[in-house]
Amino acid sequence: MRTFQKVGPLRAFVRGIRAEGRSVGFVPTMGALHEGHISLFRRAKSDCDLVVVSIFVNPKQFGPNEDLDRYPTDIQRDLQIASNESVGALFQPDVDEIYPAGFQTVVDVPALSTPLEGAHRPGHFQGVATVVTKLLNIVRADRVYFGQKDYQQLLIVERLVRDLNIATEVVSVPTARDEDGLALSSRNVYLSPTERSSATILFRAIRAAEDYVESGGCNSADLHAKLTELISQEPGASIEYVALVDPEELSPVDSLEGRLTLLALAVRIGKTRLIDNTLLAPPGVPKARHRNSRG
Amino acid sequence: MRTFQKVGPLRAFVRGIRAEGRSVGFVPTMGALHEGHISLFRRAKSDCDLVVVSIFVNPKQFGPNEDLDRYPTDIQRDLQIASNESVGALFQPDVDEIYPAGFQTVVDVPALSTPLEGAHRPGHFQGVATVVTKLLNIVRADRVYFGQKDYQQLLIVERLVRDLNIATEVVSVPTARDEDGLALSSRNVYLSPTERSSATILFRAIRAAEDYVESGGCNSADLHAKLTELISQEPGASIEYVALVDPEELSPVDSLEGRLTLLALAVRIGKTRLIDNTLLAPPGVPKARHRNSRG
Repeated sequence: MRTFQKVGPLRAFVRGIRAEGRSVGFVPTMGALHEGHISLFRRAKSDCDLVVVSIFVNPKQFGPNEDLDRYPTDIQRDLQIASNESVGALFQPDVDEIYPAGFQTVVDVPALSTPLEGAHRPGHFQGVATVVTKLLNIVRADRVYFGQKDYQQLLIVERLVRDLNIATEVVSVPTARDEDGLALSSRNVYLSPTERSSATILFRAIRAAEDYVESGGCNSADLHAKLTELISQEPGASIEYVALVDPEELSPVDSLEGRLTLLALAVRIGKTRLIDNTLLAPPGVPKARHRNSRG
Repeated sequence: MRTFQKVGPLRAFVRGIRAEGRSVGFVPTMGALHEGHISLFRRAKSDCDLVVVSIFVNPKQFGPNEDLDRYPTDIQRDLQIASNESVGALFQPDVDEIYPAGFQTVVDVPALSTPLEGAHRPGHFQGVATVVTKLLNIVRADRVYFGQKDYQQLLIVERLVRDLNIATEVVSVPTARDEDGLALSSRNVYLSPTERSSATILFRAIRAAEDYVESGGCNSADLHAKLTELISQEPGASIEYVALVDPEELSPVDSLEGRLTLLALAVRIGKTRLIDNTLLAPPGVPKARHRNSRG
């Protein structure tokens, strides 16, 4: 595995690979790698000749009261994992390499960045959109891989890739989960054993919503009330939002009948903020989005 | 000359040229081509194997009370000029090809977009930065050419190319002028013969500023007052701004001593808004900026 700290040598390396007619898959990460990242690496490896992984804890996507200072890092472990997974190139820039003195440009995807996470984390998606645009321009991969766990992020990246004509295909990969259903996240390490138990409430809510829809329920307000009650009963759990929205526009839906609906959850377990989501498809509606995701 | 209306075929054509090891120079325009554009085409042709020109009147860079509806167009004449100038490919998309339904992403270069033109044309530079980012990603040229007449635009494009790691070199080309010094602009066609005479006041003010500095003057407030008085005496001329600013940050300067200063002017002649600028260099200071302009 080749490692790079600087933009220039990484770009030259990838250019050489592509000039040989080999395809390049890119997985941007913030490190603290887990099985969710590994599933992205494996999907990239199955699609592409070379896998490039970036590890960059992007300060611009953390709010002033968020966990930038204590975000988990273990670079030696990350390097070992990436190397074991046949990652061909690892890009690990420092903050000055990505945001040198005088840096000021912002990429914003305003409508998709407003609801859900955007409402609770002001500036978060401007930080995501800006760094993703940079990383896509640096790597110039054939395909880039994002997890469905960060659904709104995925939608925003798809949108900016199309809007800014970035010639990289966005591939989404299903959420990796622990055996009890908890969505894998680098932030799960913050949870105490008791909190770790409570944290399954997000997946239990997802299952309850799927059962509701599969058994013919389609009243959005009714389902919202049931999920709110279920989560509120969990000790230590505090709801930030429970949202039933259109899976492309993220606008609220009144009825789930005959359409695909995104259920998105943000719940604090103690001090740890967790998110999860699923697509709810009534009987007869395909549980998949249709889209063109290359710019 | 090949002509393209769609992103896909243009991109494939340019990719083929570059795969043959030939270099590509790109000149984005809004059409209504004049000698200023031609000087960009010729500079691009002298540097690169293939010249790509785009003609797109970008609605996002016009304010609601600006001249989008009457902006001059003469596509047959433009095609003839481009063809005569050895332009290899002309990209002439319609608005829906650049901004399809659902488009929402904005590229903003906030600090450089705030003063001067930005203060008088809200949203203008977000429109410029967004469309330039798109066009650079579509064409993927080796070099892109901008005129120094739109100095603030040039600075913003240089900044976004560096900030977003766009692998195209930004080349700036000196302002083309009529024999009497009027900077060439597509908007000069709006001027009546009387206004055309008055319009030389911008160049006369530039000359007066250069004389002031060459003869040892370095008081910014004093020079500003002299230029304001000079322009105000011109019949039909009304000042939007006369600015003496740092040529990189666009922040006001108190003294011109020992440094390069940008003089930027925006003046209405009747209803027509004209801009011009020059770099003022006291004796002994080189009249040139130093910068790295590739992302």
